Amino acid sequence: MTPRVKEILSWYESDNPGVRTNLARMLNHGTLAGTGRFVILPVDQGFEHGPARSFAPNPPGYDPHYHFQLAIDAGCNAYAAPLGFIEAGAATFAGEVPLILKLNSHESLLSDKDPISVQTGSVNDALRLGCCAIGYTIYPGSNLAGEMYEQIRDLAEEAKAAGLAVVIWSYPRGSSLSKDGETAMDVAAYAAQIAAQLGAHIIKVKLPTAHIEQDAARKVYEKEKVPIGTLTERVRHVVEAAFGGRRIVIFSGGAKTGDAELLVQVRAIRDGGGFGSIMGRNSFQRPKDDAVKLLHSIMEIYKG
Amino acid sequence: MTPRVKEILSWYESDNPGVRTNLARMLNHGTLAGTGRFVILPVDQGFEHGPARSFAPNPPGYDPHYHFQLAIDAGCNAYAAPLGFIEAGAATFAGEVPLILKLNSHESLLSDKDPISVQTGSVNDALRLGCCAIGYTIYPGSNLAGEMYEQIRDLAEEAKAAGLAVVIWSYPRGSSLSKDGETAMDVAAYAAQIAAQLGAHIIKVKLPTAHIEQDAARKVYEKEKVPIGTLTERVRHVVEAAFGGRRIVIFSGGAKTGDAELLVQVRAIRDGGGFGSIMGRNSFQRPKDDAVKLLHSIMEIYKG
Amino acid sequence: MTPRVKEILSWYESDNPGVRTNLARMLNHGTLAGTGRFVILPVDQGFEHGPARSFAPNPPGYDPHYHFQLAIDAGCNAYAAPLGFIEAGAATFAGEVPLILKLNSHESLLSDKDPISVQTGSVNDALRLGCCAIGYTIYPGSNLAGEMYEQIRDLAEEAKAAGLAVVIWSYPRGSSLSKDGETAMDVAAYAAQIAAQLGAHIIKVKLPTAHIEQDAARKVYEKEKVPIGTLTERVRHVVEAAFGGRRIVIFSGGAKTGDAELLVQVRAIRDGGGFGSIMGRNSFQRPKDDAVKLLHSIMEIYKG
Amino acid sequence: MTPRVKEILSWYESDNPGVRTNLARMLNHGTLAGTGRFVILPVDQGFEHGPARSFAPNPPGYDPHYHFQLAIDAGCNAYAAPLGFIEAGAATFAGEVPLILKLNSHESLLSDKDPISVQTGSVNDALRLGCCAIGYTIYPGSNLAGEMYEQIRDLAEEAKAAGLAVVIWSYPRGSSLSKDGETAMDVAAYAAQIAAQLGAHIIKVKLPTAHIEQDAARKVYEKEKVPIGTLTERVRHVVEAAFGGRRIVIFSGGAKTGDAELLVQVRAIRDGGGFGSIMGRNSFQRPKDDAVKLLHSIMEIYKG
Amino acid sequence: MTPRVKEILSWYESDNPGVRTNLARMLNHGTLAGTGRFVILPVDQGFEHGPARSFAPNPPGYDPHYHFQLAIDAGCNAYAAPLGFIEAGAATFAGEVPLILKLNSHESLLSDKDPISVQTGSVNDALRLGCCAIGYTIYPGSNLAGEMYEQIRDLAEEAKAAGLAVVIWSYPRGSSLSKDGETAMDVAAYAAQIAAQLGAHIIKVKLPTAHIEQDAARKVYEKEKVPIGTLTERVRHVVEAAFGGRRIVIFSGGAKTGDAELLVQVRAIRDGGGFGSIMGRNSFQRPKDDAVKLLHSIMEIYKG
Repeated sequence: MTPRVKEILSWYESDNPGVRTNLARMLNHGTLAGTGRFVILPVDQGFEHGPARSFAPNPPGYDPHYHFQLAIDAGCNAYAAPLGFIEAGAATFAGEVPLILKLNSHESLLSDKDPISVQTGSVNDALRLGCCAIGYTIYPGSNLAGEMYEQIRDLAEEAKAAGLAVVIWSYPRGSSLSKDGETAMDVAAYAAQIAAQLGAHIIKVKLPTAHIEQDAARKVYEKEKVPIGTLTERVRHVVEAAFGGRRIVIFSGGAKTGDAELLVQVRAIRDGGGFGSIMGRNSFQRPKDDAVKLLHSIMEIYKG
Repeated sequence: MTPRVKEILSWYESDNPGVRTNLARMLNHGTLAGTGRFVILPVDQGFEHGPARSFAPNPPGYDPHYHFQLAIDAGCNAYAAPLGFIEAGAATFAGEVPLILKLNSHESLLSDKDPISVQTGSVNDALRLGCCAIGYTIYPGSNLAGEMYEQIRDLAEEAKAAGLAVVIWSYPRGSSLSKDGETAMDVAAYAAQIAAQLGAHIIKVKLPTAHIEQDAARKVYEKEKVPIGTLTERVRHVVEAAFGGRRIVIFSGGAKTGDAELLVQVRAIRDGGGFGSIMGRNSFQRPKDDAVKLLHSIMEIYKG
Repeated sequence: MTPRVKEILSWYESDNPGVRTNLARMLNHGTLAGTGRFVILPVDQGFEHGPARSFAPNPPGYDPHYHFQLAIDAGCNAYAAPLGFIEAGAATFAGEVPLILKLNSHESLLSDKDPISVQTGSVNDALRLGCCAIGYTIYPGSNLAGEMYEQIRDLAEEAKAAGLAVVIWSYPRGSSLSKDGETAMDVAAYAAQIAAQLGAHIIKVKLPTAHIEQDAARKVYEKEKVPIGTLTERVRHVVEAAFGGRRIVIFSGGAKTGDAELLVQVRAIRDGGGFGSIMGRNSFQRPKDDAVKLLHSIMEIYKG
Repeated sequence: MTPRVKEILSWYESDNPGVRTNLARMLNHGTLAGTGRFVILPVDQGFEHGPARSFAPNPPGYDPHYHFQLAIDAGCNAYAAPLGFIEAGAATFAGEVPLILKLNSHESLLSDKDPISVQTGSVNDALRLGCCAIGYTIYPGSNLAGEMYEQIRDLAEEAKAAGLAVVIWSYPRGSSLSKDGETAMDVAAYAAQIAAQLGAHIIKVKLPTAHIEQDAARKVYEKEKVPIGTLTERVRHVVEAAFGGRRIVIFSGGAKTGDAELLVQVRAIRDGGGFGSIMGRNSFQRPKDDAVKLLHSIMEIYKG
Repeated sequence: MTPRVKEILSWYESDNPGVRTNLARMLNHGTLAGTGRFVILPVDQGFEHGPARSFAPNPPGYDPHYHFQLAIDAGCNAYAAPLGFIEAGAATFAGEVPLILKLNSHESLLSDKDPISVQTGSVNDALRLGCCAIGYTIYPGSNLAGEMYEQIRDLAEEAKAAGLAVVIWSYPRGSSLSKDGETAMDVAAYAAQIAAQLGAHIIKVKLPTAHIEQDAARKVYEKEKVPIGTLTERVRHVVEAAFGGRRIVIFSGGAKTGDAELLVQVRAIRDGGGFGSIMGRNSFQRPKDDAVKLLHSIMEIYKG
């Protein structure tokens, strides 16, 4: 147990030892064990985007066992997926990689301006499947955001009592936001804050741009000269927005992108004090050997 | 217990022996016992389309006993119906054919662009009626899909804990989809994926056309050259979309059609790795002898 | 236990000793202990307005521990915040300052004319975190106000049974009100009355202007010559509106303002019989030493 | 918040902030606030011994308000009593002294060699009455001890979840023990250990004699030369037996005794590292002024 | 994940992935990780025998943190203790060693010929404290054994549904057995069988002697020439009695004994196919360095 892991666990001071144990299990697993950094493999795109868009680029990914093995081979801290994918491999790979059960899902067959992600798993499922944490997506800015806030509140209270950690994917989206606004600096920081106030132990947000969406926020950023010019600065600001660094914040890689750019992003996350990456499509949409190699490159950066 | 059945049961690795036992009951019943293939008789059209549209073409079908006897005579793996039909025969035919209790229903008196199918049976009903499985319909693409996902999640958790298998009818429909989109290739594959992620043991979808509904999907199908030109290829793609073949996927015959065409479809299902057919109107809307003969022809193909 | 505190407690005659004990804890804590006056530090702006707008002016405020320490150093009667902020410090500062758990929150990413604040904490959370009270915001005048009234009714019943006090933030807002109407004299008094009728032990409203929003009300104010010309008179009227002075009513400072004006307001609250101030942005958006000094000036006025 | 109180709270590392807050309330109340020492006034003798035996020596004690006022006047850390006594004064004295609701009681009308103390209050009662803790008596050595262990286990789980502290009176008694055995060194240490293992936050035992009851224990005390010759040494051994000093152990004064002897005992408790005294009959069976004077003398010793 | 661990996990085929994950956590922790062998540190003697008999020989053991650290330093697979001991260290050592919460306890103040061990912890406690398993003691042969069987049945059902493993201490004792009978060959094998039939995942029994207690059993042992002459043979027979080797059976060291004899016993356990040792008094009743050294010697034997 490294001093850094002990320090991180100390932030969750109102949580029972069960929650801390499950956080420790993720912090102490895989290539980054003990560093306080994370690389998590999430595979919820089958539900979110459909199977062909998710897996046709690398067809072995249709098989749920593939992703368990990828997370293990790459030395990820954890593997996150919805009920079906977890059920399809949890016994075969029991004890080999910490699991996060995504408890809600959204399908992209709907053309919904104000999306809602609905419950597709339970805390009992997470316990019976041996998971360390529940995962949940919120859409700040959606007119239906309130329904998700109330649902994760219920689920988080139940999960914490049972010793499970709570991971919130905070993705601004909805009719109140412009397309650029979804990854705007002020909105990303706000999204991290909301997840933290909802009681998340681990917060996942997208990397922000320098765009400012809200006028009321722009005035403050300008007046207080909040440094957000570089990606590193923007990561630092998001981490600050999540309780001054007292909550684990990890960043998504987003759509598949060039590897060079990806590594640049990872260095910015590291230098800005981010806690790591959650890397789906950039991992499982390429041959496994390539994916493991890329993930190892990323982990090397976080270790550095 | 054939090796194939053992293999299929092994996919349901997170399920308790009760669920596996009920899956085995269906896999080992009737003409196709032990082959890993299914022909299921579903009779939910009375509720879904109204009685005359369903049973006037072959009036003995008004009598619920008729369908039990048909499923038995034809050697189907299972018989699926809503509460009333099952209650009306479950004692007389106890132990003669595996039963699937359809837990939700939709009536066609409504002109609803975004349909929802509502709960009309319970897990307790399934247990007291001696059923092997619960059945449930979802409408991916409906604005009300989320309500159905949350309801089947609840019901599936309860059913699995009680050792019952879960069969999901996944029928894309709703204002976000064009009429052609309901059976589009990308949409059918997506529908299978959603059912699998919701934790279904057996997934029922419609045979897809070569149409692609979503632009984002079309790009991938084209770029990755996913073969979907023939019905066999399309079946193979749907099966792949259901966890790389690790879930039982069966196909509906849809509206009554010519027998020759039907048998062509069945051969495509077989050759594409589909697990079988669920055959309602093509079975019970003709005289029983004809129906039994047709079903035997279909089963012969699956055995081949 | 001063006679004034005893008198105040006597107003809550239908409440069990647990509720009175928790009211007494707040009345007897900090610099104003025993005076029957309150200065409460609320920090819910991170969720309500976003992190940068809230904390960039004084960046140590990103850290949840900062606010606990500020409330302690300034001798506030209580510290109020949403779940995440309370969880992040409740163990470190256990027993050092009475806590109010804000049970609902609203985000300003939404452009909602009829806002609703959704539940983000529970009575169980308040108990496990050692809080003296739950806090809840209502928006009288919003078309969705009824949902909030029903929710706080449920929560207040549960809280009172468990011995927790109930604090209601009553903020008129919604499509039925003009912008000026939100702080109009008649509306502010009405907001206080609604909170009191909902069973609040402590009511928080904004300082009212002399504007009258509703015609039906204006007629009465004019006919009865209700004195509302000065801020002191308006405070007196609001306190009167909250059960003739039998409920604790405190006033918010609102947006950051000049200190001189603030102290003028505090004197008006004191002279009008108001019970104190809830002071967020004017406290935590300046350096801590300044904040403590300002809060002490305010407390001196209340003591005077 | 003194460093000593912070240290003591740190021992209860698996407890939620609510429990720590209530422990802090007792540790920070009264004359001994902040010292880490306790003097608690318990008045359960009315139920345990009957009213005349309890209150005839000082008849004002028949009135439940008397004991609240005595605890307040003497500056005790807390006042402990059964349901009726607490109900009879909790509103009048709300917020003036931390309360411990004794949840079980035993009457001395029974001539039971193997006594059991039965539940006469609930966790809900403790919450509605504004108590900081529940109290519970166990009789290790009674053939019915197991029933009490199971009941306090249930109640402690419920109390801890609601943020209440748990105080266990551990009084060895029963047909397996000799009269001398009830206060024997080995038995007293064992009683403290059992209460600690049951999850008590505060443990109350009787001052032990140098007698050893069990042969198996005597061998160890002799072989390991455990120092138990003086009362100070025996107190130290009991404290060690309660998790090496990581649990608060307080000692009862027992039957009314001479004041000089009492103060000698208190000095021994202080010097042996005991956390304080729980003093019933020696407090309330004399005129209040005398009682307050005596309790202040005792508190002076603990402060020294 | 070694083949041996995979093989062991495969025996628990009716258990959900959560149970298998928690078994894997113990099988893959510490010096013996991956070998399929166990050395567990149990410290329930404080409750069972009293504190001085347990900890006076090595007084640092009064402190609950000592035993967590000992289990960690020695590389034990798990640490088992009752509620109080686990609560006192579970947060400090979160994630550092798998924990088994002993859910029932028996005190030796009672002179009970037919002992019963009563519930002193819950499945919820095990979850909130981050434990991998619950532990429970049964006394086959006690007239009160049935009460324990019914209680562990309830608790095991609840634990398994929540993904926790179940460890049963099976200690024959009671008025129907002679003193020699408690460790008799037939009785030990019977005790292992009962625990296995009750659904235990891990079974703990005492090393048996060659004595046969029951006449009906003796006839069979003699007729069938069951080899039980050596300790190795007797271990083999007990393992066989626990479902032909399909359940993990570990053996207790019993009272503190000479190290040479202990190592002889360990070799017999290893050679007889036993899965390991649970070693309490021989571990914590000596200085920590000695204990770690001894435990490492034992682990070396199991690795050999």
